[in-house]
Amino acid sequence: MIVTASVCELCAESREVVLWQSTDCRVVRVDDPAQPGFCRVIWNAHVREMTDLDAASRSILMSVVFAVEAAVRQCFSPDKINLASFGNVVPHLHWHVIPRWTDDRHFPEPIWGRIQRTSTTIRPVIDDPELAAAITCRIAQEGLA
Amino acid sequence: MIVTASVCELCAESREVVLWQSTDCRVVRVDDPAQPGFCRVIWNAHVREMTDLDAASRSILMSVVFAVEAAVRQCFSPDKINLASFGNVVPHLHWHVIPRWTDDRHFPEPIWGRIQRTSTTIRPVIDDPELAAAITCRIAQEGLA
Repeated sequence: MIVTASVCELCAESREVVLWQSTDCRVVRVDDPAQPGFCRVIWNAHVREMTDLDAASRSILMSVVFAVEAAVRQCFSPDKINLASFGNVVPHLHWHVIPRWTDDRHFPEPIWGRIQRTSTTIRPVIDDPELAAAITCRIAQEGLA
Repeated sequence: MIVTASVCELCAESREVVLWQSTDCRVVRVDDPAQPGFCRVIWNAHVREMTDLDAASRSILMSVVFAVEAAVRQCFSPDKINLASFGNVVPHLHWHVIPRWTDDRHFPEPIWGRIQRTSTTIRPVIDDPELAAAITCRIAQEGLA
């Protein structure tokens, strides 16, 4: 008999670079050259929707999301920030924090939309330790560190 | 000389059905037959990003977003909720609260992604007063009414 276990990929250890983590959640960097400051905030427990969390947990998670937004704005000076929580493919609560530029590949569409152009603009180069430091600093300002 | 005024469509009065409103923000129903409980939460002031709001205002806005999520889940029993704040076209802070079904037109893509199928499944029919009442009740539970 072959037994195949269904494992949630966000319950498993992240293969992506972890920029910050706590017992509640973690911030990983998404390897997307088109959106170089793209981060994901992942709730550690396997929860499906924001309204499956209690109010205190929701507040913690959103404070981390907004701290990441602030750090990404500081480091990358994007034209816009996009925030999204879908979980259609992996129904384990996570937030996308995406810096957008008016001349990026999909703008003004979301990055899941139709490609609008080829973009060759050079974006700020921020390495993982620098981005991690900016996020850690912003999270500390939120009183969560 | 021709002077054209650039008016933000979210600063103007909503043409959509307003389900709930306060001095801070409003909830409107999006007329999308494919996603019948699709709501938008719009911050009344012309603000660009979540991190342009102070912490108290962010908390108020997210509490309304989550109250709407709870009401939409209650009324429509979707398979998943999608939350997103983009503002690429209209950079005035607003949140999409979108009920999703595994057999809807775009699933598992976001609704801005590629169409996956023709969907003819009948969804729950909830009229505006009923949805407005559910949202108002959930917002009251958040202590915001």
